[in-house]
Amino acid sequence: MTSLINEIRDFADQRDWHKFHTPKNLSMALAGEVGELLAEFQWLTPEQSLKESLSEEQRKAIELEIADVQIYLLRLVDVLGIDLAAVVREKIQINSTRF
Amino acid sequence: MTSLINEIRDFADQRDWHKFHTPKNLSMALAGEVGELLAEFQWLTPEQSLKESLSEEQRKAIELEIADVQIYLLRLVDVLGIDLAAVVREKIQINSTRF
Amino acid sequence: MTSLINEIRDFADQRDWHKFHTPKNLSMALAGEVGELLAEFQWLTPEQSLKESLSEEQRKAIELEIADVQIYLLRLVDVLGIDLAAVVREKIQINSTRF
Amino acid sequence: MTSLINEIRDFADQRDWHKFHTPKNLSMALAGEVGELLAEFQWLTPEQSLKESLSEEQRKAIELEIADVQIYLLRLVDVLGIDLAAVVREKIQINSTRF
Repeated sequence: MTSLINEIRDFADQRDWHKFHTPKNLSMALAGEVGELLAEFQWLTPEQSLKESLSEEQRKAIELEIADVQIYLLRLVDVLGIDLAAVVREKIQINSTRF
Repeated sequence: MTSLINEIRDFADQRDWHKFHTPKNLSMALAGEVGELLAEFQWLTPEQSLKESLSEEQRKAIELEIADVQIYLLRLVDVLGIDLAAVVREKIQINSTRF
Repeated sequence: MTSLINEIRDFADQRDWHKFHTPKNLSMALAGEVGELLAEFQWLTPEQSLKESLSEEQRKAIELEIADVQIYLLRLVDVLGIDLAAVVREKIQINSTRF
Repeated sequence: MTSLINEIRDFADQRDWHKFHTPKNLSMALAGEVGELLAEFQWLTPEQSLKESLSEEQRKAIELEIADVQIYLLRLVDVLGIDLAAVVREKIQINSTRF
């Protein structure tokens, strides 16, 4: 995870994207990518969306959209200085008392 | 990451949520959480959204929303049998030839 | 429609929300409301989401989320000075040559 | 509004899209279009997103994305049999007691 975060930061650094990568803007970019992921599933039935029902092309498209979502999430976590694994663990803990 | 995926899977298993956790449904839940993350940033200026400008409460709320997004993304990756680190690396590679 | 747009503008004016209602911010608020609408449908099957299958409470909740989405869309259209009916007609025309 | 709803319904009817147009699926399509709208604004500052700052091309792209959002919202309202103007008025009323 840390290694991926660093690769993504270097990528942004080399292209001088720092000024664009505010948390506000990154949350919008993240939402845009999630919108593209939704588009892959929108006309499928829940059954057609299952792993074993997807075509190779569908699967590939979904994988790349998921990657885009994860990339922006890691970028957001990086610019905010958040320990992602720690907050995920904390949230699982909170959920386990709620459900 | 693998350990987090397993914890999240156990959590869903124990509550018998498997039938709800189709990829289609999980993509919607993911988008719902991203909507809540956007809501944290929507009335802030880009400058106010920066790490050093956020109040403790804002930061805490953002952390927990990010955790929710990551949890659903890991759950989606799990039910689809995707190697997340591999597809992120592949996408960074693709992006580096595009930009 | 024009009358609704005016009511929504007055509502924002009276609360001095103009400085917050930039197109960028309103697009985020719109997306946040759509996220809440998705949350109403996320665990339902497509069949359970049909008009005749929804409970009174589900229907009421969905109606109010749809209203929130429409309110922010009308606010966005207003601050951008867009003729909504005209652009919808134009887009239907474009779509009819594409599909 | 009613006339636009009818045009959009005819468009869907002629292409035999009824089976795809469940409320659940339409909410996803709506979110996908909102994602595309966000993408138009994500790297702009709030000031750059203002009506007077947008280029002709930016404006055109935004108009067409807004049209797509409105089209899916009207389609959703149609399949659910919702009186959109009535629920918007009701929600403005609710908001006016809250804020």
